Amino acid sequence: MINNRVELITIGDEILIGQIVDTNSAWMATELNQCGLKVVQITSVSDSRNVILTALRDAAQRADIVLITGGLGPTKDDITKACLLEFFGGEMVFNEDQYTQVEKLFSSFGREVTPINRKQAEIPSTCKVLINERGTAPGMWFEKENTVYVSMPGVPYEMKWIMAELVIPELKKRSGLPSIVHRTFLTQGIGESLLASWIESWEDALPEHVQLAYLPSPGLVRLRLSTTGRDEAALHEELNNQAKGLYTIIGKHIYGEGEQSLPEIIQDYFIDKKLSLSVAESCTGGNIAHMITGIAGSSAYFKGGVVCYSEELKINLLGVPPDVIAMHGVVSEATAIAMADGARKTMNTDYALSVTGIAGPDGGTEEIPVGTVWIGFASAEGCMAKMFRLSTNRERNITTASLSALNLLRRKVILGEALT
Amino acid sequence: MINNRVELITIGDEILIGQIVDTNSAWMATELNQCGLKVVQITSVSDSRNVILTALRDAAQRADIVLITGGLGPTKDDITKACLLEFFGGEMVFNEDQYTQVEKLFSSFGREVTPINRKQAEIPSTCKVLINERGTAPGMWFEKENTVYVSMPGVPYEMKWIMAELVIPELKKRSGLPSIVHRTFLTQGIGESLLASWIESWEDALPEHVQLAYLPSPGLVRLRLSTTGRDEAALHEELNNQAKGLYTIIGKHIYGEGEQSLPEIIQDYFIDKKLSLSVAESCTGGNIAHMITGIAGSSAYFKGGVVCYSEELKINLLGVPPDVIAMHGVVSEATAIAMADGARKTMNTDYALSVTGIAGPDGGTEEIPVGTVWIGFASAEGCMAKMFRLSTNRERNITTASLSALNLLRRKVILGEALT
Repeated sequence: MINNRVELITIGDEILIGQIVDTNSAWMATELNQCGLKVVQITSVSDSRNVILTALRDAAQRADIVLITGGLGPTKDDITKACLLEFFGGEMVFNEDQYTQVEKLFSSFGREVTPINRKQAEIPSTCKVLINERGTAPGMWFEKENTVYVSMPGVPYEMKWIMAELVIPELKKRSGLPSIVHRTFLTQGIGESLLASWIESWEDALPEHVQLAYLPSPGLVRLRLSTTGRDEAALHEELNNQAKGLYTIIGKHIYGEGEQSLPEIIQDYFIDKKLSLSVAESCTGGNIAHMITGIAGSSAYFKGGVVCYSEELKINLLGVPPDVIAMHGVVSEATAIAMADGARKTMNTDYALSVTGIAGPDGGTEEIPVGTVWIGFASAEGCMAKMFRLSTNRERNITTASLSALNLLRRKVILGEALT
Repeated sequence: MINNRVELITIGDEILIGQIVDTNSAWMATELNQCGLKVVQITSVSDSRNVILTALRDAAQRADIVLITGGLGPTKDDITKACLLEFFGGEMVFNEDQYTQVEKLFSSFGREVTPINRKQAEIPSTCKVLINERGTAPGMWFEKENTVYVSMPGVPYEMKWIMAELVIPELKKRSGLPSIVHRTFLTQGIGESLLASWIESWEDALPEHVQLAYLPSPGLVRLRLSTTGRDEAALHEELNNQAKGLYTIIGKHIYGEGEQSLPEIIQDYFIDKKLSLSVAESCTGGNIAHMITGIAGSSAYFKGGVVCYSEELKINLLGVPPDVIAMHGVVSEATAIAMADGARKTMNTDYALSVTGIAGPDGGTEEIPVGTVWIGFASAEGCMAKMFRLSTNRERNITTASLSALNLLRRKVILGEALT
């Protein structure tokens, strides 16, 4: 049996100079948590011998399992393997199985194995090799003084496969530890402080062993309840009871739980009810369509969209009457409604969303400042539009407007809220 | 004068349980690097007293400057401020200036300051307060035994403002250190190993004090040359000379340098030459439009796009002849060309791009497997399309297909490559 404290070490100057965002650690932490393993620290160090060796040594003080990513690419800036050899001892040996895998992979791309890739099949004799079916660098499983160390390539697509298929199953088998149970409630459209004031008395009444965390991101606030113990059923029961209280206070603002996203929730509902959707996007510039089509299977309900950055396309492709734009302006309730209505009719769908606004940072006026966004909705029963005042930050505004539009769709279609 | 080793500490269970990706550190590292400050380690720890205190203490062994983000939100899961008080001494004092700022911020949203937010203006007496004009939690500048510690909120929008306006200028003023000069070359469409073999002899001839790193991400490989020294002009000169060699070998594959993106490069060229663009997207589902419109000012050349997830929209909105689809299939050279041509004519632009393919994970056939993508291009001179075989991963395929389409546009329009 091994204990449950995990440290993640990422190796690579590219993280320390900021050219790469470390998305691996978040993914790994999520997966580890789900099987009751707890990440106690994430450490990013550079591609240099001393700091790698120090990081390997120090991690064993804090953790029972050390998962190392990065520093195993085919190119010459990588010294991780030499450090592993120095730290764990042994000698470099050529691994036939990994090499066969590399050859298979390259032949599927119609390419020849280069000498550089061949070198990747050389592995310290002190490790158990984790054959990488997704790439050329294998994973390596070492054990030293009761600590497990696993080294994996940093390419997310490869690391995820090795983790899911080889590392997590083995760690699960060996541990026998208390479970952590989380439940995460997803809200859209209410700020963190306002949400906190609404649920203050519920939060204050939570028992000691239940923790609440606020996880804000642009346009969303997630609320996470956590508790730890041996009796998993009792932990779920406890969180279920607490969740009831939360739903009583802010139920209609909770669009989902856990890893669900608004596009997924909408997709499940629309496919189940055999409904169709189209979108007309001006200031969100295709982001709503992108979010929707990021989900596999979305073609079963999403027919498509028009990104009408120019007035001309609003008129020609969506049939927005030119005098609506002339009278009310491009960023107006009337235009948003005409766009949604036009999208629904042109693309022949049950529902349509539209967005018109000023994403910024420029283009605002005194009357219509940057961050003003009208979101329109069209159905067989009629149309409506709602105004939002967002920030002056283009990226945040695009994200928040897209989420607000999808949440409006959810509330109108799934919750069946009135049009007005 | 202070030294130049920086450690970044992020505080928050949300990072360790993987609910948040740490994008702050990458941004901070990039900014710090540009003024010659070197991030030696990034450490993420949980919201608990002991580990925060240990992290603060240990960081001083490795770094001269410790930048701390997170753990300062308005809600109750935050204990960072108490730890800072314990570590640096002093007492909590109410800061009028920060509170005035909070009131100003809230009144601009038309909201009242809550007692929770009022508490955020309480600050250890041992720090210099960095007034946060973007949010409610101020930055705090501490000094202890020749180490500078700065604590900032973790919300990227707020942290970035405090860093750019208050922290970096002060750090710059105090340091007087050798510069690091980087030059990053951006390539699209060639794998890391192939690239490495092409430039091997150039790379082997690089002098000791010039480092090369490969930074791959889906669809892209960035090559970064770095060197450090006191004479900044000489460093630039050195990298310029090395760059010439690189351009001789792979010049046409380098689409840009540094932080430039393909949409930015295209936008600059199109606006300069007064050209216009439209897109017709099937399997990329709006991502190309989203990438283009993510850049401020894109409306000056990008008229819009059609996301035609259904065959019906390809026919009705883009004028793709039904018999082209019937004869050649939706994922074919002929359909890609008809989509690009249709987009260009319908949306009345100088150029148009189209994408049709199978993003996956399902929907492939033996003949047209998942990852098959046709990218079409239309201009006044004519049309063409090119096939790409990508992976089985939907997200990667959407990203890579979008980048491949934009790079095709660059090569045809900016480099003026022939249509065939």
